[in-house]
Amino acid sequence: MGRIGVAILGATGTVGQEFIKLLLNHPWFEIRALTASPASAGKPYHKVARWHLEMDIPEELRDMTVLPTDPQALKEEEPEVSLVFSALPSEIAKEAEPKFAEAGYVVCSNASAYRMHEDIPLVIPEVNPDHLKLIEVQRKKRGWSGAIVTNPNCTTIVLVLSLKPLVDEFGVRRLFVSTMQAISGAGYEGLPSMAMIDNVIPFIEREEEKVETETLKILGKLVGESVVPASIGVSASCNRVHVLHGHTETVFVELEKEASPEEVAEVMDRFTGEPQRLELPTAPKKPIHVRPEANRPQPRFDRDAEGGMAVVVGRIRKDPILENGIKYVVTGHNLIRGAAGASVLNAELMVAHEYL
Amino acid sequence: MGRIGVAILGATGTVGQEFIKLLLNHPWFEIRALTASPASAGKPYHKVARWHLEMDIPEELRDMTVLPTDPQALKEEEPEVSLVFSALPSEIAKEAEPKFAEAGYVVCSNASAYRMHEDIPLVIPEVNPDHLKLIEVQRKKRGWSGAIVTNPNCTTIVLVLSLKPLVDEFGVRRLFVSTMQAISGAGYEGLPSMAMIDNVIPFIEREEEKVETETLKILGKLVGESVVPASIGVSASCNRVHVLHGHTETVFVELEKEASPEEVAEVMDRFTGEPQRLELPTAPKKPIHVRPEANRPQPRFDRDAEGGMAVVVGRIRKDPILENGIKYVVTGHNLIRGAAGASVLNAELMVAHEYL
Amino acid sequence: MGRIGVAILGATGTVGQEFIKLLLNHPWFEIRALTASPASAGKPYHKVARWHLEMDIPEELRDMTVLPTDPQALKEEEPEVSLVFSALPSEIAKEAEPKFAEAGYVVCSNASAYRMHEDIPLVIPEVNPDHLKLIEVQRKKRGWSGAIVTNPNCTTIVLVLSLKPLVDEFGVRRLFVSTMQAISGAGYEGLPSMAMIDNVIPFIEREEEKVETETLKILGKLVGESVVPASIGVSASCNRVHVLHGHTETVFVELEKEASPEEVAEVMDRFTGEPQRLELPTAPKKPIHVRPEANRPQPRFDRDAEGGMAVVVGRIRKDPILENGIKYVVTGHNLIRGAAGASVLNAELMVAHEYL
Amino acid sequence: MGRIGVAILGATGTVGQEFIKLLLNHPWFEIRALTASPASAGKPYHKVARWHLEMDIPEELRDMTVLPTDPQALKEEEPEVSLVFSALPSEIAKEAEPKFAEAGYVVCSNASAYRMHEDIPLVIPEVNPDHLKLIEVQRKKRGWSGAIVTNPNCTTIVLVLSLKPLVDEFGVRRLFVSTMQAISGAGYEGLPSMAMIDNVIPFIEREEEKVETETLKILGKLVGESVVPASIGVSASCNRVHVLHGHTETVFVELEKEASPEEVAEVMDRFTGEPQRLELPTAPKKPIHVRPEANRPQPRFDRDAEGGMAVVVGRIRKDPILENGIKYVVTGHNLIRGAAGASVLNAELMVAHEYL
Repeated sequence: MGRIGVAILGATGTVGQEFIKLLLNHPWFEIRALTASPASAGKPYHKVARWHLEMDIPEELRDMTVLPTDPQALKEEEPEVSLVFSALPSEIAKEAEPKFAEAGYVVCSNASAYRMHEDIPLVIPEVNPDHLKLIEVQRKKRGWSGAIVTNPNCTTIVLVLSLKPLVDEFGVRRLFVSTMQAISGAGYEGLPSMAMIDNVIPFIEREEEKVETETLKILGKLVGESVVPASIGVSASCNRVHVLHGHTETVFVELEKEASPEEVAEVMDRFTGEPQRLELPTAPKKPIHVRPEANRPQPRFDRDAEGGMAVVVGRIRKDPILENGIKYVVTGHNLIRGAAGASVLNAELMVAHEYL
Repeated sequence: MGRIGVAILGATGTVGQEFIKLLLNHPWFEIRALTASPASAGKPYHKVARWHLEMDIPEELRDMTVLPTDPQALKEEEPEVSLVFSALPSEIAKEAEPKFAEAGYVVCSNASAYRMHEDIPLVIPEVNPDHLKLIEVQRKKRGWSGAIVTNPNCTTIVLVLSLKPLVDEFGVRRLFVSTMQAISGAGYEGLPSMAMIDNVIPFIEREEEKVETETLKILGKLVGESVVPASIGVSASCNRVHVLHGHTETVFVELEKEASPEEVAEVMDRFTGEPQRLELPTAPKKPIHVRPEANRPQPRFDRDAEGGMAVVVGRIRKDPILENGIKYVVTGHNLIRGAAGASVLNAELMVAHEYL
Repeated sequence: MGRIGVAILGATGTVGQEFIKLLLNHPWFEIRALTASPASAGKPYHKVARWHLEMDIPEELRDMTVLPTDPQALKEEEPEVSLVFSALPSEIAKEAEPKFAEAGYVVCSNASAYRMHEDIPLVIPEVNPDHLKLIEVQRKKRGWSGAIVTNPNCTTIVLVLSLKPLVDEFGVRRLFVSTMQAISGAGYEGLPSMAMIDNVIPFIEREEEKVETETLKILGKLVGESVVPASIGVSASCNRVHVLHGHTETVFVELEKEASPEEVAEVMDRFTGEPQRLELPTAPKKPIHVRPEANRPQPRFDRDAEGGMAVVVGRIRKDPILENGIKYVVTGHNLIRGAAGASVLNAELMVAHEYL
Repeated sequence: MGRIGVAILGATGTVGQEFIKLLLNHPWFEIRALTASPASAGKPYHKVARWHLEMDIPEELRDMTVLPTDPQALKEEEPEVSLVFSALPSEIAKEAEPKFAEAGYVVCSNASAYRMHEDIPLVIPEVNPDHLKLIEVQRKKRGWSGAIVTNPNCTTIVLVLSLKPLVDEFGVRRLFVSTMQAISGAGYEGLPSMAMIDNVIPFIEREEEKVETETLKILGKLVGESVVPASIGVSASCNRVHVLHGHTETVFVELEKEASPEEVAEVMDRFTGEPQRLELPTAPKKPIHVRPEANRPQPRFDRDAEGGMAVVVGRIRKDPILENGIKYVVTGHNLIRGAAGASVLNAELMVAHEYL
């Protein structure tokens, strides 16, 4: 079987480049097209990408002509493509993604535009693979032959992945999360060096709202044609710190049932999900690594666990003031597990489930 | 009236240097002696201090001969000294501070060794100035002619100063605090550059315990000869980030009575305490500055508010999951308001109360 | 005598803000107007400035309405202004500055547009105050009632100030300079944090050319109506490092006459110029501070010497391969001595010479 | 053929750990023993190594008992070892390395202690592989059955590797080099974070002397039983910047014969040496990578070229003041090409030349 031809929408930005890195030697997918804004369309990729990766632009993509972000153009230039990965900014995604879905493309999107729409799956393959069934609702309702499937915000993914075994084993009533997020989450030019050197910025626009709402949808139950949000309380406080990649989050969680730190460590450590059972190509062997050291996880040392697809948990301890309270720290790679890798894993899950 | 002669115990370290800066042109106090470990004693100060301040070592102290940290030596060399500021490491403080108190010195200590002892005041002058009365208990019980008065850990001070108006106006039931602490809190050689560049360390030894216990003592009530700890729940998660000075803390607090963010901002903004009423020399005009901007406080911009003696609060907003919940962020200078400045303000308060 | 009314052209940027800081309580000058691009004109200053300074925007300027960068508008709004400081980008300065000079304003410019024009003085007051006489040439030739006076590029100023005593005492034949420049030299948004964290960028556009040509003009001799460039060889290699403020430069210099490191240190240390003799308000007492420590100057510790108006030299030693060779390191504040402070000192010199 | 058993002397430090990483799956060598100071000897490796690498300590070495740095102990514990890599501090190396050589071990040393000794080869395999012949002189003179072979200081290696093709093709008369060196060069605890944040330190002890002398020995000619140093003038100015790994050097070089930047780029680009001809396992395919971009090399992006074994050159341009002058910038990984990798490549060369 040949590989599935894919396009990357918004391929010039930070997340677009991570898609390229992850898809470069992918066993199932093959990059056939790169799209960008009208200003960049028609030009060779290397002229318009503000390349930020340590590796060079892959030779075969350097001179690839960038297409406009438009399904007709894509269809004409690369008729073999059926799957598109979207690294579009949210406002652009809002317009463009439905057009692609309508034109028959499966859109695996990292954009926030449709995450909270009722009939759009918001999926972490280890957590709620069954939500993919919303595709049928979506197609029926919108008359699309394609589909849109989204992954959560980077901070949310790292959090929810670490929470899932606790939800399953002990039940989670509510949680407080305070984040220390990497600069790459804001895009290449998002944060001037003069803003970040010797500094912390305790605010990221709309980030706390995303964490507080997306978590409930992902952990919600698919009932009939929609998701009933989980009844968990989530309160977030989001901060930017001077780290290149890797979001670190301190979590205070109230469980339904009492659990010792050792039990929590154990259920996290042995946690796996469908991607592991299906042995999806991008799936980490263990989605959660539990470190025993007193001072881990640390973003520089832990963000690349299993190629950046695993999250790393440490400092699991009793919370002194919550009922059945547990505190811990979790780190994950915001651009890989938190963005491009999340979309790629969603696409692999869709292949396994024969949506593709 | 002449100025009171003072000595700085442990004068060569990071906090010791801040004491020098704060006391250099102090209207009430005059540096007469500097002490250090036996290895440094007998040498000129500039040879043994690992100077970290942007200003140079003051001319008059450069060649001052460092004394051993011993009350007899101090008494012989500088009989005029009656007040000592302690920047000693905790283990050294444990031995040395009682000897000074016994020898008649008032010890204003930044060390943690005696903070939680029943008869030792742990004071933030704006918060619990009346706890100074423990001095009488202490003298009676220990037979000292001098005294030990301590200030809290840096993280605790910044937190509790911001909490005090909430405690007074609305009552505080419990709180979660996640910190992003500056490297200078670990001392000059505490954190290798290789550990901190492009990184976060989510652990600071014994820090969370200090925050969780000291807070209750400071906010406790002096009843008879001891302090009844406040019945507030405190849970902390402490992290080191790549910032030179200034601890930033995200706080989730459950109040007794409902309060809007505007009300919280207002009571914080107009908060003052005894240091302000007494117009103590080192007291900030406003102990808490409330910033209206969405992205403040930031350590590089806010740590030096009022010479580093004020804390800066921002992002006051409703907490979605706590009853009467409020979230906010607070930043304060860990070496000034959080250490040396705290001790100096304690000493000024003692002068005003005629303990000195 | 009343203070001279001044305007700051391009007041919203990094250098514009430094002008504000330096002029805020200036004994001779008073800020009467702030100009910016058409997009910002008409709005209150605090809405359009991307403020980067640790101090807040001064209360009296927060709501000042920004004017367009146009002499007619300035004349109408603030008829008392006779002096303008230009922090304009070079392309804008090229158009705008001559219009101001023609309209009668004295323009003290930090922009590079006219620095190398034959009849435009390029002045460091301690080095070539006599070059101000080009103003007369300029007025005659261009028919201006005002004037344009420029200061050098930040890197050049720091270098040339340190060289001047060597030129005077020993003669300088040629020099190599390799720089480690601060991020603030590129403007607030000039360098993304993702570009600078854990990195060096060994290139700054047109910087080496500026150092190599400006140096010769400043050290040149005014003969009749023009400056004969110094016959000194200059070769530069310019780099950006992760420092907020303060350019550090390693210099390898070949002297005409042999000099020991001690002699070099001595002539640098006792160097003064006209600003010191005239006691100009912004002049440092000593333009060059020589540090004896093996590891100084360092930008974080030395950039603020004398309010950022002095440069700091260290590591003066023999060069092993140049004839009469000397090596040293010099650091100076790129935004103060290297930009806004340089223009302000030029203006003060003009007042002293009665050009204003 | 089985792999050669090797020991790493001084295995707990920064360079020792890089040796482990490089030797872990080496086709010719197999780690059999790790040595450290008496304080660490007898303990499991993971208890005494202050591990700094992003990868974890390899499973098979975690619990390996650390040996004292003593040939007798090594011989008893691991009789199969014949080659030792030395990451010892210079003072320790001075005592220990001759004992190992005397006991029959080949010592490939990164320490500076013996680099400049007349009968000790100081080798970069691409540059002066023939200097290995000094081993015979050394054995004869010292009566050793083993040998000591050294590699240069990290800064020197990066410089000399980039110079070698220029020496061969055009001749080099003299050069100035100003460095921007990574913090990892000082060892894990060598530079406190408080020293480096927002700063540059323009001094590294004895570094300039090493660059100025080692360069001449490496580029010298082996005549009879000793090396006649190259008659090239070298002047260095060494600085520490806030970069984790990767030394960047600006070079101003005077050639014997004129060469255009294009010719220089070409000879660098096609340069290879014996390691490439012999296809040694650790040899980079191209020792020098020439980047055409205006702003490269940059340490974060270029230090890992060919696993950190290639150096990266950019910004090749005419020098305006030197006869036949060329300027360029070169970056190399200080711990790999500049330290552990250099020793490993030396050992591979010795195997190929049958010294092992």
